[in-house]
Amino acid sequence: MTAESVTADLPAPAFRETDSATTVAVLGAGSWGTTFAKVVADAATASGVERSIRLWGRRPEVVDQINALHVNEQYLKDIKLPSSITASTDVAAVLAGAELVILAVPAQTLRPQLRAWKKHLTPGAVVVSLMKGLELHTDARMSEVICAELDLPANRVAVVSGPNLAMEIARDEPTASVVACTDPITAGWIARSCTAPYFRPYTTTDVVGVEIGGIVKNIIALAVGICEGKKMGDNTKASVITRGLAETSRLTLALGGEARTMAGLAGLGDLVATCSSPLSRNHTAGRLLGKGLTLDQVTAEMKQTAEGIKSSQAVHELAGKLGVDMPITAAVVAVLAGKLSVDELGPLLLSRDLKPEGDY
Amino acid sequence: MTAESVTADLPAPAFRETDSATTVAVLGAGSWGTTFAKVVADAATASGVERSIRLWGRRPEVVDQINALHVNEQYLKDIKLPSSITASTDVAAVLAGAELVILAVPAQTLRPQLRAWKKHLTPGAVVVSLMKGLELHTDARMSEVICAELDLPANRVAVVSGPNLAMEIARDEPTASVVACTDPITAGWIARSCTAPYFRPYTTTDVVGVEIGGIVKNIIALAVGICEGKKMGDNTKASVITRGLAETSRLTLALGGEARTMAGLAGLGDLVATCSSPLSRNHTAGRLLGKGLTLDQVTAEMKQTAEGIKSSQAVHELAGKLGVDMPITAAVVAVLAGKLSVDELGPLLLSRDLKPEGDY
Repeated sequence: MTAESVTADLPAPAFRETDSATTVAVLGAGSWGTTFAKVVADAATASGVERSIRLWGRRPEVVDQINALHVNEQYLKDIKLPSSITASTDVAAVLAGAELVILAVPAQTLRPQLRAWKKHLTPGAVVVSLMKGLELHTDARMSEVICAELDLPANRVAVVSGPNLAMEIARDEPTASVVACTDPITAGWIARSCTAPYFRPYTTTDVVGVEIGGIVKNIIALAVGICEGKKMGDNTKASVITRGLAETSRLTLALGGEARTMAGLAGLGDLVATCSSPLSRNHTAGRLLGKGLTLDQVTAEMKQTAEGIKSSQAVHELAGKLGVDMPITAAVVAVLAGKLSVDELGPLLLSRDLKPEGDY
Repeated sequence: MTAESVTADLPAPAFRETDSATTVAVLGAGSWGTTFAKVVADAATASGVERSIRLWGRRPEVVDQINALHVNEQYLKDIKLPSSITASTDVAAVLAGAELVILAVPAQTLRPQLRAWKKHLTPGAVVVSLMKGLELHTDARMSEVICAELDLPANRVAVVSGPNLAMEIARDEPTASVVACTDPITAGWIARSCTAPYFRPYTTTDVVGVEIGGIVKNIIALAVGICEGKKMGDNTKASVITRGLAETSRLTLALGGEARTMAGLAGLGDLVATCSSPLSRNHTAGRLLGKGLTLDQVTAEMKQTAEGIKSSQAVHELAGKLGVDMPITAAVVAVLAGKLSVDELGPLLLSRDLKPEGDY
């Protein structure tokens, strides 16, 4: 069952009697989960709403630090968290009564975690994914995993994505984002729950486009990083971004999403922010590859695997199944597999025959 | 008469008996004109074609340096020019027999220059604009000025635009570009004439989209520069780029161009290259405005006026006439007129009501 196959005209759940969420659970206390908890807390303060925000983390030391000192030093150094955020390692306590559940855990571990968490979910709760990855082997998007594992209709599952570097949002820098749900009423309710003075969400019903934009941008960011590592110029990088967005659009259309989502904040916006930022792990991993490091050396130096490295093989396989031409993704997969040198990547991107531009 | 109002099914001019141009005139020996002369020269070498490239410049010292030393030190320091390029201050000699004429002069002086040059144009010649500006007072695009002043049908007038920072191309860094002409046969002929190992042109028939993309990106680059000068982050800049491309698309559609051109190299590609590069004059001017300098101080420090500063008023007026909403352009015009402080710009960009994204 895909998220889009469910009709969106089910009766509105009871929680919509309130204008925005009053009890929010955030599962995952990394940089984006913690930052989003702060956004939801600041949104309540700005609109004069009472709201309880509970953050679930795996590690007791992180949870204790958030409760005692209102900081999450490892992920958001120097950021003071609102005292309306409480943290816990007990997922049942965090989920109890939560109308709005935000998921920010690693993409590849989501499915088993949801199986363990399902029994604690409050009836009628809306679930939001902050995750950007495609599940290996199944090629499932995160919203599909959520619908399937929690047995939820599409009108209760949403995705938030956009040009959203967590550290900048944590510093209250002005940021726009997109809330995607097949049901626009649910999308609006979530948007009102997370509108802070520095965080402005737009809404859309194109869940597929928003998710695919967020997944493929990590792969394009690897390619742009490789170009930077090879000391290529801004013309080349801009071309890779443009042609990368074109191949993202082709995949989106093949999956039933909309091309215009790619021209928006969750497509172009997220891609440009990621490719501009030294804070992006994918971008950084690409730069190291471009300088000549092997994949193992990059992983060792960064102490974690960038999401684009994990998702690229899944995206490449999905594109193959659907017959979608994704030459930049294919080149990145070949570089990661050691089958293409980074020296060959640049010329390859310019080597296709002269032809009209713009055919998706 | 607009460029698009002329039918493209006139008989093919005689020069199309050759696969690409054999005699090329480039009018304007600034950085982009000189670089494009090098591209056309290197394209001939790469494809084994004999080609004469003549470059017209206003100043004898520049012309003499190109002929004697094969360099244009002021604009392209350290770049060796091919010896197939000859330069002259005599426009009649440069235009004599030229099948392909490339124009790279300031946008606001094009019309009077064309009036003086018309009598020297070879019958059947194809004319290409490298210029990115809207004529003040008439709101005419450069291709419209060319068609009107040289009395040419649209199938003999083209535009080249894309993520094309001249200095990077002059250094042979891999670059893609777009050749736009209402006649795809003419576009292909021009593309073959300028395909160098490092320069890859695509073709399109959307002249309006390619020109509007090139014009408005200078204004968006000013806005992005202002955000940088104010030390805003990559999320904000990516949002301004995204929303800026959306308002460029609205103007393009209102003028009869295509939205998908904006997703391509001459829209998104050019915008991203300009907004990433420290080499862009518009981007630099924006940064100085963001740091608190007045328009007069910026002009004095840069020793020339950035094209976006000149075009922004014309674009703002054109949008007003057509009823097109262009909030970023309006904000830049207000900042340049001293009616809006740079401190007010960022919040303004995030202050619109919560609404669905993506409506052009």
